[in-house]
Amino acid sequence: MGELQFPTSLGTSTPDRILLMGQDLTDLMGNVGFGELAFWLVALRRPTPGETRVFEAVLVALADHGFTPTAIAARLTYLSAPDSLQGALAAGLLGGGSRFLGVTEDCGGYLHAVLTEHGDDLPADEAGWDALALAAVRRTREQGRFVPGLGHPVHKVQDPRTPRLVAIADEEGLRGPHLRLFEAIGRTHEQVLGRRLPLNGAGVCGAALADLGLPVELLRGFALLARAAGLLGQLAEERRRPIGMDAYLTVDRNAVYVDPALDDRD
Amino acid sequence: MGELQFPTSLGTSTPDRILLMGQDLTDLMGNVGFGELAFWLVALRRPTPGETRVFEAVLVALADHGFTPTAIAARLTYLSAPDSLQGALAAGLLGGGSRFLGVTEDCGGYLHAVLTEHGDDLPADEAGWDALALAAVRRTREQGRFVPGLGHPVHKVQDPRTPRLVAIADEEGLRGPHLRLFEAIGRTHEQVLGRRLPLNGAGVCGAALADLGLPVELLRGFALLARAAGLLGQLAEERRRPIGMDAYLTVDRNAVYVDPALDDRD
Amino acid sequence: MGELQFPTSLGTSTPDRILLMGQDLTDLMGNVGFGELAFWLVALRRPTPGETRVFEAVLVALADHGFTPTAIAARLTYLSAPDSLQGALAAGLLGGGSRFLGVTEDCGGYLHAVLTEHGDDLPADEAGWDALALAAVRRTREQGRFVPGLGHPVHKVQDPRTPRLVAIADEEGLRGPHLRLFEAIGRTHEQVLGRRLPLNGAGVCGAALADLGLPVELLRGFALLARAAGLLGQLAEERRRPIGMDAYLTVDRNAVYVDPALDDRD
Amino acid sequence: MGELQFPTSLGTSTPDRILLMGQDLTDLMGNVGFGELAFWLVALRRPTPGETRVFEAVLVALADHGFTPTAIAARLTYLSAPDSLQGALAAGLLGGGSRFLGVTEDCGGYLHAVLTEHGDDLPADEAGWDALALAAVRRTREQGRFVPGLGHPVHKVQDPRTPRLVAIADEEGLRGPHLRLFEAIGRTHEQVLGRRLPLNGAGVCGAALADLGLPVELLRGFALLARAAGLLGQLAEERRRPIGMDAYLTVDRNAVYVDPALDDRD
Repeated sequence: MGELQFPTSLGTSTPDRILLMGQDLTDLMGNVGFGELAFWLVALRRPTPGETRVFEAVLVALADHGFTPTAIAARLTYLSAPDSLQGALAAGLLGGGSRFLGVTEDCGGYLHAVLTEHGDDLPADEAGWDALALAAVRRTREQGRFVPGLGHPVHKVQDPRTPRLVAIADEEGLRGPHLRLFEAIGRTHEQVLGRRLPLNGAGVCGAALADLGLPVELLRGFALLARAAGLLGQLAEERRRPIGMDAYLTVDRNAVYVDPALDDRD
Repeated sequence: MGELQFPTSLGTSTPDRILLMGQDLTDLMGNVGFGELAFWLVALRRPTPGETRVFEAVLVALADHGFTPTAIAARLTYLSAPDSLQGALAAGLLGGGSRFLGVTEDCGGYLHAVLTEHGDDLPADEAGWDALALAAVRRTREQGRFVPGLGHPVHKVQDPRTPRLVAIADEEGLRGPHLRLFEAIGRTHEQVLGRRLPLNGAGVCGAALADLGLPVELLRGFALLARAAGLLGQLAEERRRPIGMDAYLTVDRNAVYVDPALDDRD
Repeated sequence: MGELQFPTSLGTSTPDRILLMGQDLTDLMGNVGFGELAFWLVALRRPTPGETRVFEAVLVALADHGFTPTAIAARLTYLSAPDSLQGALAAGLLGGGSRFLGVTEDCGGYLHAVLTEHGDDLPADEAGWDALALAAVRRTREQGRFVPGLGHPVHKVQDPRTPRLVAIADEEGLRGPHLRLFEAIGRTHEQVLGRRLPLNGAGVCGAALADLGLPVELLRGFALLARAAGLLGQLAEERRRPIGMDAYLTVDRNAVYVDPALDDRD
Repeated sequence: MGELQFPTSLGTSTPDRILLMGQDLTDLMGNVGFGELAFWLVALRRPTPGETRVFEAVLVALADHGFTPTAIAARLTYLSAPDSLQGALAAGLLGGGSRFLGVTEDCGGYLHAVLTEHGDDLPADEAGWDALALAAVRRTREQGRFVPGLGHPVHKVQDPRTPRLVAIADEEGLRGPHLRLFEAIGRTHEQVLGRRLPLNGAGVCGAALADLGLPVELLRGFALLARAAGLLGQLAEERRRPIGMDAYLTVDRNAVYVDPALDDRD
């Protein structure tokens, strides 16, 4: 076993130095922001100031949405096990799956697949993007699948995050093909689906992250990082002004017993 | 690194055999019950039929208590990430901390500590146990701490699990010093605390597990194993007859915004 | 909100009674085994003694496989956070996903889908099962997908759990269509795949669970329950004879730094 | 139940607006950094630029330390369940307990307790801080407890993060009483403990966070947030250049079976 080797480009240390991606950690401290570092850790390159601004705007957009199922799960876990903050945080993050937080990854991946299949010769104008989007939505629909990033239960007309993130990316010169394709889907999907749905915030975040060149298979990870900050806020609030006990009692006190013999739905 | 060695007495395998604690797995299958195996895996000895009956009665007692915070957290996680059953189960187990499931471990550990300090010369009759219990409760009270295993929010007079588990242990000849001391605490604590509290089910389970010789530092683990079965039941029911969405919406729709400037309780 | 109702057939309680699936918990304690209860909680019916024996044989088969990635993850988590047994257990269970523990669910689901598509007119003899199996394997192969439950990294000729579980099911009159189809796949796949692979233990467990009528979408849950017992054993052993620190140091001390500029594989 | 109310100061939304702590989310996006937002979510006040710089320096310092037990646990979980990135991230965070990540919280809490007990009349000079520190270390030692934040397995003389973080805090006018007390402990503990230990990075981060006025009971949460970014980096690297399989096989192939009868250490 003398040849055991575990390669890494991340943290290493000697008695008097700590390196992170080959940089001296003491140089990073105070000079590199936290979002910037998160980007760097995944992409193994330091983002530009413009990239950092778009990236952090995404994290800010995804950090907290109030009493989501994951926020409530984290609070209930903290209620049961206040000695283990890490457990409450982990419980909240475990809800970051296909249904809620997954849209960011699904949308980025969808756009990436359409662009990859289309090849390098990208559209030169809005009409070109619209044609590409229309063909993609039509094909997806024919396959009986959904176009990710469309629709929102509350923001039925427009999700306010979408135009804002597009504008920030535009300001920074980072309104790339994923965002342009996503915007074109917003303009054209009604022709196929028969009704107009808003481009949702989770979806536009996925498009923006993909335009930053981040690996599309890991986009969910950035939603989770953003949510970690939001969950900390939720748990801090649970300490100040708890709702976990009331949420639990509301369910428990309104429990209605159903005879198992009648419960034959499965 | 040639001398790398990772010792274990649990599972090992060769191309044609699988061993578990030195037993051929194919001999265990069909001949050893699941609860029996769980005991064996932790204690490294096969329990007797009587021990198995007491042990499984504990697991049955702790498996499910309806809409607990952990059950709701598991259901909300399943709602958010239905693709990851393991995540929902893990989220539910993460609530198995100090406040709810911890009582089993705390109580077993408390009784064990009292008995260890008292030494080998155990009381010979009920009066002797009462004296030992009274001294322990008094000392605990003087230290400003709580006696674990006393009191229950719903079963204010008697927790039905307690006499039942004592009776099963008695039938099997396993009503040992931890249970006897716990029963004596039940008879005597009123003299110190000034009011009569029931011996709760989580506590009596801890006492019974300690009497089985299981390591007191791991008693919480058995409560978690029992709860894993209960959570599977909760998740199966969430599939058949979901309540997660309603629980979430009940909280979300009754959210009331509080100005942060007024939220100065911390 | 006066009409808030959260239906359940599982645990409910009044000040002097605790009910579980409509049964008095004190009747279940001492009379129902833990595996039996786990089946009941999910299926909402009490299994017969034969069903219980097959079910518990499955749980015993899946409980522990030594130093699996999940066992090591649980031990490393316990090393870092020994104050939170629930966190270590949860960390171990979180590895119960598509790659390792998922085979049980995938295999049960695969067999169930083949049988559902085939309809009620099941084969009457071995030749009939072989024909059905051969057609299924051929179709799966043509779709570029894998047949789940075939092959094992260690048990390359025969997985000892497979014949043993089939024999137990046979003894109990529970060798149903899922097991028969799985066995037929074992006899016929070589004609399509060009080489003979063993029917693995995780797969046969999925087949047996499906024959018990348990919901195929939840089969992974039983693998997780089994694994919870195995992980408790691993954590008990980590307390007695720790390997976590050595496992960690083995990786850390053999870390080799790779310049990020060269790490362009993504 | 008409009066159900769940108060929150965090995220709320209407069909056309999303608010976070009373701010329009679209104003936060592009104008507020991610670390800044995380501070704001917990403290319910926007940090100053100087506070943000110190806070982000802490997060950067704690993000990744290479092949820690938590990083390895996350990678092993990803190996087993690559379909669930949230599970791998959660598994890694679950190691954020008392032993490794807990030092930040323990140290901040320790310093806070010493300062609270001392009262408002803080020392005016270094000699005064040294006297306060010496008395605290002495008392802690007499109680048989450890002073958190002292010592490091690798950085035995000086942890490079410590002077760097003190310098950043000083530049921003945020070298407050917790940091000053911690520095004084660094100068004086040798008189009590008989040997000189370095002030470690986790400890100095706890001191700096406490000086920022963040709740000391939640300091572990910031270490977890930082670690979430580090774990994302680890998982991205596991995709590019995996070590999980090798780490697992190294343990598994060097397993040595120990007869349970000999394993009587517990």
